[in-house]
Amino acid sequence: MQLLLTYDVVTTTPEGRRRLRRMAKLCEGYGHRVQKSVFEITCTDAELLTLLDAATRIIEVSDDSVRVYRLPSNGFATVHRLGVAEPAPHHDPLIL
Amino acid sequence: MQLLLTYDVVTTTPEGRRRLRRMAKLCEGYGHRVQKSVFEITCTDAELLTLLDAATRIIEVSDDSVRVYRLPSNGFATVHRLGVAEPAPHHDPLIL
Repeated sequence: MQLLLTYDVVTTTPEGRRRLRRMAKLCEGYGHRVQKSVFEITCTDAELLTLLDAATRIIEVSDDSVRVYRLPSNGFATVHRLGVAEPAPHHDPLIL
Repeated sequence: MQLLLTYDVVTTTPEGRRRLRRMAKLCEGYGHRVQKSVFEITCTDAELLTLLDAATRIIEVSDDSVRVYRLPSNGFATVHRLGVAEPAPHHDPLIL
């Protein structure tokens, strides 16, 4: 199935910035980064459960937010895009 | 139709921060903010064209990115959510 995963992580603390980097690293293992905090993911139901479990262990549930939307089968192909098409990574170095 | 709109706006300059505020304001007129740069939108094809046109006039196409995904008819109801459910607005005051 095709999914769109988006996240907000509060980065006002070093711990938050670490969570942000860990979320990015996790999601990069599952899909294609299309914006800083938006990933297109193709996976099975079982893989989604594994991803959600890992995300739950990374985020601070009282501060951060992760949302996963199921798209139609042609969902990635029919996106309307304005501006730059390339993914924009977070600027912090990746330290996990 | 149900849509998910996401944006990345480069905010390293005052102009970029102004674009970010204008994009947020535009999208708030069309839908529900679920994350800082993610909106759930229900609109017609004509309204989508108007929205895309307005967004094109706000963003800097060489720096920023807007993506609009069409969701299944039950797309908002079937989202997987982790962490905070409330929308997290940008912290800047809204000055247009």
